[in-house]
Amino acid sequence: MKTWPCTGNDVSPEVNDTMNKPERIDTATEDTMLAIGKRARAAAHALALASPEAKTKALHAAAAALRAAVPDILAANAKDIAAAQAAGRPDAFIDRLLLDEKRIDAMAQGVDEIAELPDPVGTVLAEWTRPNGLQFQRVRVPLGVIGIIYESRPNVTADAGALAVKAGNAAILRAGSESLNSSLAIHAAMASGLKSAGLPEAAISLVPTPDRAAVGLMLAGLGGTIDVIVPRGGKSLVERVQTEARVPVFAHLEGLCHTYVDRRADLGMAVDIVLNAKMRRTGVCGATETLLVDSGAPAEFMPTLVKALLDAGCQVRGDEAARKADARVIAASDEDWATEHLDAIISAKAVDGIDGALQHIGRYSTQHTDAIVTADADTAERFLREVDSAIVLHNASTQFADGGEFGFGGEIGIATGKMHARGPVGVEQLTSFKYVVHGAGQIRPK
Amino acid sequence: MKTWPCTGNDVSPEVNDTMNKPERIDTATEDTMLAIGKRARAAAHALALASPEAKTKALHAAAAALRAAVPDILAANAKDIAAAQAAGRPDAFIDRLLLDEKRIDAMAQGVDEIAELPDPVGTVLAEWTRPNGLQFQRVRVPLGVIGIIYESRPNVTADAGALAVKAGNAAILRAGSESLNSSLAIHAAMASGLKSAGLPEAAISLVPTPDRAAVGLMLAGLGGTIDVIVPRGGKSLVERVQTEARVPVFAHLEGLCHTYVDRRADLGMAVDIVLNAKMRRTGVCGATETLLVDSGAPAEFMPTLVKALLDAGCQVRGDEAARKADARVIAASDEDWATEHLDAIISAKAVDGIDGALQHIGRYSTQHTDAIVTADADTAERFLREVDSAIVLHNASTQFADGGEFGFGGEIGIATGKMHARGPVGVEQLTSFKYVVHGAGQIRPK
Repeated sequence: MKTWPCTGNDVSPEVNDTMNKPERIDTATEDTMLAIGKRARAAAHALALASPEAKTKALHAAAAALRAAVPDILAANAKDIAAAQAAGRPDAFIDRLLLDEKRIDAMAQGVDEIAELPDPVGTVLAEWTRPNGLQFQRVRVPLGVIGIIYESRPNVTADAGALAVKAGNAAILRAGSESLNSSLAIHAAMASGLKSAGLPEAAISLVPTPDRAAVGLMLAGLGGTIDVIVPRGGKSLVERVQTEARVPVFAHLEGLCHTYVDRRADLGMAVDIVLNAKMRRTGVCGATETLLVDSGAPAEFMPTLVKALLDAGCQVRGDEAARKADARVIAASDEDWATEHLDAIISAKAVDGIDGALQHIGRYSTQHTDAIVTADADTAERFLREVDSAIVLHNASTQFADGGEFGFGGEIGIATGKMHARGPVGVEQLTSFKYVVHGAGQIRPK
Repeated sequence: MKTWPCTGNDVSPEVNDTMNKPERIDTATEDTMLAIGKRARAAAHALALASPEAKTKALHAAAAALRAAVPDILAANAKDIAAAQAAGRPDAFIDRLLLDEKRIDAMAQGVDEIAELPDPVGTVLAEWTRPNGLQFQRVRVPLGVIGIIYESRPNVTADAGALAVKAGNAAILRAGSESLNSSLAIHAAMASGLKSAGLPEAAISLVPTPDRAAVGLMLAGLGGTIDVIVPRGGKSLVERVQTEARVPVFAHLEGLCHTYVDRRADLGMAVDIVLNAKMRRTGVCGATETLLVDSGAPAEFMPTLVKALLDAGCQVRGDEAARKADARVIAASDEDWATEHLDAIISAKAVDGIDGALQHIGRYSTQHTDAIVTADADTAERFLREVDSAIVLHNASTQFADGGEFGFGGEIGIATGKMHARGPVGVEQLTSFKYVVHGAGQIRPK
C-alpha cells in the first residue's frame, strides 16, 4: 500500500524554517485555533463512545470519499507542486509532495485497511479479583485529542487521521504550508466520509491556515484541548516541539542506527543485511548509519563488507581498519559517528568485540534501532538485552523498523522516548486505559 | 504495613511556598546536582542489567539497614520535629513528619514487601511471528532515572526508592526541607543496604541540600539524566512541576472524587459507601468530595444520606434539595462543586438521573476516581464506560483508590494523566518496553 519513500520521519530540513521559530500570534489565528480545539474535544468525547461498527463504517466512507475526490485532490496538489517548483524545491521534495491517482488510491486503501484493524477500545488488558471481592479490570480507552504536526507529505492527512479515529480519538492536523492545498482537499474528503457515516467531522480537523503561530498554539495545548502531540518532520521541527511543548509528545529525534557484525557472523548474511540496512532506502529513519565490525572477526570481514557497500554506490567513511580494507574509504571525522547521514553514506569502524560494540552504541545510538549479526546465541542475547533502544534486532535489517513490518497496520511514527509509546506508534499506542472496579458494597477498613 | 494517614498525595499547602517558586541557581548547587544526575544515570545502567536476585537481596539488605539504623533515624527525626514545632507547624503536619520505632519498622516491612514483588524487568508482554519469519517480542525494561519530589513525609524516601529499584531504575529523591534530616538518615540506611548487596549506592540518591533551586534543576531534567518526574505533594507543587517540567511527569493534580447514588441503589449500601468514601480519612486523594443523589430516587434517599454524614460530623454544603432534606445543611457556593475539600466537608446535590450525574462529573471531575451506587447493571455499565476517570467504581468506596488496595504492593502516587501511567503508579508503571526481533538473515524487500 505504501508508495512514499519513507514511513518513519519525514525529513525535509530545507523547509524546517517555515515552522520552527517562535512567532507573534494574531488574534484571528488564536480564535480559529481555540475553536478547532473545542470542536475536536467535543468530537473526541463522541468518538470515545462510538461503537466499533460506527468507526469502521466511517473510515470506509472516508476511503470512498477520497476515491471520489481524486479530481479535486489532483487539482489542489497541482497548485502545491507549481508553488514548490516556482520556489525551486529539490526533486526529492517535489516527489514527496506529488500526488497521482495511484498514490491517492494507495491512501484510500490505507484508510480501508485501518478501518479493518481490530478495535482497541474496550479491550480488557488485565483483570483480577482481590480478597475482599472487588473485581478489577484494566480497560483500554482512547487518549483524547491528538495533535499531529507534519511537513510536506500530504498522505499523513489521511493516515494519521484514520489511525486516530480508529483508536477513538480526535485528531488536529497541522500540515506543512507547502502541502496545505493538497491536505485541505484530502481533509475535505475524509471529513465528508465521517459525516456521511454519522460521526462528527471535527474528529479529523485540519488547521486551515498556513500561519506558523498555529504550531505554537498547538504545542501549548490549545487551551487544554490537546492531550498529546505527534511531530512528524525534520530534526529542527522535532526539537522545537520538544522545547516548546507543554503537553506530552511522542517524538523521535533521530534514527542513528547501528549494525554490528560479530566475529561469529555468517559473512554472506552480514553482507546482505548491511547492504539492505544502508542502501534499500537511505532516507528512512531505520536506515543503518554506522557499521561496526568485530576486530576479532576473520580478516576478510571488513574488506568484504566495505567493498559491497562501495560497489553499491555507498560512500564509506571509516576508521583506520576500514581505510586499510579498501583504498576508496574516506577518513571518518569524529562527527561522523554522531551523524544521521540519511544518504548513501555510512560510517564504518572496527570495535573490540561485543564489548566494543556496546560501548560505541551506548555512546552514539539515538535509541531508535540497532542490530547485531552473529551466529552465536549468547552474544546475540547480550546485545539484545544491553542495547537500550526501542528496537533491537538479531540477524535482520534495521530497515524493518516500521509499524507495517511489525504488523501494526500503520503507524504515525516511531517514538524513541520511553514514555507510553516506544517504537512504532500504531492504533494501540494511541490509547490509554482506565481501571473499572465492580463491588458489592465494599467499604475500606480504617 | 501503612501507618501514615495518606497513601496518595501528601497535601501540606502550608509548606508549599518553600518549594514552589522559581529561584536563582547557585553554582555549587548546580555542580552537586549535575554530579548526582551523572551518578544516578550510571547506577540506572547497572540496575537495568542487575539480576532479579540481586535487586531482591539488595532491598532486603536495605530493610535490615533501616531496622539497624532506628536510633540514628529517630535522632535525626527529633531535629526535624523540634524545628517544625519551633516554626509553629500544625499538628497534622507534625504527625506526618513524626517517626517512631513502629513507623520505621513499618517502613522496613514495606521495603521487604517490595523486595518480594515479582520482578517486572524482562517480562515478555507480547510475542508474535510475521509471515517473513521475523519473531517479535515486546519486553519490559526499566524507565531509567526517576526524579521524585516530595514534601514532609519521610517514609517516601524508603517507599519510592525501593519501588524504583525493584523496577530496575535509579531514583533521585528531593525531600521537603522540613523532613531533610529524617530523609538523610533513612537514605543513608537504604544506600548502605544496596552497597552491602553489591548494587550501586547511587541507585537511590537523595538531594542533600534544602536549596530550592534543586527542584528547578530536576524539572529541567538535570542535564538529560532524569527520564520522568513524580511529584508527591500539594497542589501548588504539582502545578509548578507541570508548568516548569521539561521532562515527562506522572502527576495527579487533585482528587475531586464523586459518589453518585442512583435511584436503584440499595439505600443501606449507599449510606455505608458514602460515609466511608467521605469520612474514613478525609485528607486522602480518594476521599469523595461531592455526593450526587438521583432526583428520581425515593424521597428518603437525600435526607437519609445527608443525615448520616451530618451525624458523623461532616459539614454538608448543598443545593436546594439537600438543604430541604436537613436544616443543618449549608448552602453550597458555585466554588464548592470545584473544591477538593480534603476535610470533613462534602458538597451534595440532586441530579437528574444518570444523565445529570454524567454531566456534573464531566464538568467537575479531576479524572481521578468516581463511583456509582446502583443495583441496575445497565446504569452501572453506562457510568463506568462514560466517566473518563483513571478509576471508576461500582458499589464500592472511592477510598479504594490506592495501589495497595489494587494489589500493586505499593505505589508512588496516583496519576491522573492518560500518558503511560494512569491510576496507582506501582512497580509495573515504572517500566517501559522495547521490541526484540529475532531473524535468520531477513532483509526488507524494496
